[in-house]
Amino acid sequence: MSNSWWLNPCKAVDARMVEQALARQQQLTKPAGSLGQLEPLAVRLAGLQGQLKPGLERLWISIFAGDHGVVAEGVSAYPQEVTGQMLLNFVSGGAAISVLARQLGAQLEVVDLGTVAPGLSLPGVRHLNLGAGTQNFVQGPAMTPAQGELALQAGRDSALRARAEGAQLFIGGEMGIGNTTAASAIACALLDIPVAQLAGPGTGLNAEGVNHKAQVIERALALHARSRDDALQTLFNLGGFEVAALVGAYLACAQEGVAVLVDGFICSVAALVAVRLNPACRPWLLFAHQGAEPGHRHVLGALQADPLLDLGLRLGEGSGAALAVPLLRLACDLHGQMATFAEAAVADRPA
Amino acid sequence: MSNSWWLNPCKAVDARMVEQALARQQQLTKPAGSLGQLEPLAVRLAGLQGQLKPGLERLWISIFAGDHGVVAEGVSAYPQEVTGQMLLNFVSGGAAISVLARQLGAQLEVVDLGTVAPGLSLPGVRHLNLGAGTQNFVQGPAMTPAQGELALQAGRDSALRARAEGAQLFIGGEMGIGNTTAASAIACALLDIPVAQLAGPGTGLNAEGVNHKAQVIERALALHARSRDDALQTLFNLGGFEVAALVGAYLACAQEGVAVLVDGFICSVAALVAVRLNPACRPWLLFAHQGAEPGHRHVLGALQADPLLDLGLRLGEGSGAALAVPLLRLACDLHGQMATFAEAAVADRPA
Repeated sequence: MSNSWWLNPCKAVDARMVEQALARQQQLTKPAGSLGQLEPLAVRLAGLQGQLKPGLERLWISIFAGDHGVVAEGVSAYPQEVTGQMLLNFVSGGAAISVLARQLGAQLEVVDLGTVAPGLSLPGVRHLNLGAGTQNFVQGPAMTPAQGELALQAGRDSALRARAEGAQLFIGGEMGIGNTTAASAIACALLDIPVAQLAGPGTGLNAEGVNHKAQVIERALALHARSRDDALQTLFNLGGFEVAALVGAYLACAQEGVAVLVDGFICSVAALVAVRLNPACRPWLLFAHQGAEPGHRHVLGALQADPLLDLGLRLGEGSGAALAVPLLRLACDLHGQMATFAEAAVADRPA
Repeated sequence: MSNSWWLNPCKAVDARMVEQALARQQQLTKPAGSLGQLEPLAVRLAGLQGQLKPGLERLWISIFAGDHGVVAEGVSAYPQEVTGQMLLNFVSGGAAISVLARQLGAQLEVVDLGTVAPGLSLPGVRHLNLGAGTQNFVQGPAMTPAQGELALQAGRDSALRARAEGAQLFIGGEMGIGNTTAASAIACALLDIPVAQLAGPGTGLNAEGVNHKAQVIERALALHARSRDDALQTLFNLGGFEVAALVGAYLACAQEGVAVLVDGFICSVAALVAVRLNPACRPWLLFAHQGAEPGHRHVLGALQADPLLDLGLRLGEGSGAALAVPLLRLACDLHGQMATFAEAAVADRPA
């Protein structure tokens, strides 16, 4: 079935617009550089949008959910049923990301790739039924190549819908009890970092729980050691459906020219897989925050990412990315609306 | 003229509401603590507002401007005329804080306490004419006690106007060429920290300029050494009019029960003075960001402040505080609008 669409070229950044935006920044009525990280951010968005004055009014959020067979190993503080229960909470408006999407005026879609809840059918949720969660990856691959490619395509479909709606920014969120275990395993495999540095408490394990989780990941890495250099196979071996969907969404956004705001640890691992599969997607990925999960720092470092926020977040759902959206919007507003020294008749510093 | 109003009691925090808000946080559909710094922030605002579900729709921003006699020593990268020129930019809508106030729906007032521009009269600016800037504080006190008390009262007047308009959050901003020198000198005097650790580039000095600035501060500290333990006299000796106005505004907000969001280095020094004068104001002061000025870290540390953002900002004008407002608002939205586990029929983790 595969045509390996994820290897297709990504849209080029508009280098001329980057230059013009940089020149504009130098003329605004403030000491050069005094808006810190917001200045290169606005310049970068100008290059991505091909607009001297970029804007981020139209925001799209896709939440991808899936269950994880590895939960059978006792790696999560929450029961697996929560994945399905939270799907209802997302569309009912009570989850964190529901509140944030509403306040930000974002379009929110919820995609269920496959959970343990049998025959779940919730109005407002796209149920894709790729399986009743993944298989337990300490015993074999988490998903078949066919399932993996369907999950990648599901993410791409979301990106294409976002693009069709004119989205200027794409946020992917995730929900899946057990998915910090999957993400940690993928990151260990791809970055060759010791498990002890990457495994963390997730939604709330104690020290003993983290220890056990690390041992489970060690077993999985040993089982799948031969595929370590193959990012796609590693994703299929260790990933969740929702992680694969994020990978597909990020790559399709880069191909279609929609800027992406990456959320926390799990999304950053998906971004790492995306960059390994198709490095040209990297310029399209903006990073929202440094989360509480200890492995996040390593993944961001490997991606040379410079996230905007560091608030100790560890919720997922795209919530950290959503929280960073106002900063991106205000960076654009400042870049687009501030007066230049000439316009305001303010003296610039002596050259 | 003095009645030392700044020593009057501050409004008490509603401890019962803090407890109720904490209990509510534990019931929301997310792992406890997973929203990081935003959770205690919402709880704290509940206690300050005496509301289980606090809100921050009504935002007030006062920009205080003043010139500094110490600029005669060559401590700034920009000409002193910029202070007055920026006043026009503030009310014309072209400055960073003008853009931010507009986007946030804030009321913005601009208060000119005294600049070198003679007879400046700009529509929309409150000109208080306390003097043509302060005196050069390496030669004597920056201001007389009468000027200092007028500046404190000017800040208080702004706080009272904010309160009369129903403001739920007060931001003070500052503009004054040379005011990082004044703020650094105050911080050195009050914190007894070596000048080399506090003096920084301000709006853009090079290493040689920073060195010279540090020497100027050393001379000022030697001249005013006797008053070091007297926060009010230190403010009058080394401060700017705008710094004193910020101190008065913060103290009056705490007395009137209006939460304050403190901006960058200069505002944090004003907060330090306010806390030294009347420690009961501390609970009313929220800190927006860690700025680029190296001394800011020390001042925040002394105040045990845990700022929200760290974006390398160094503009002033209240801009860093304004940039943090959406985070505060979203923290309130999440706290007030998320479903509880019971409402959403989501399983909480096993006790």
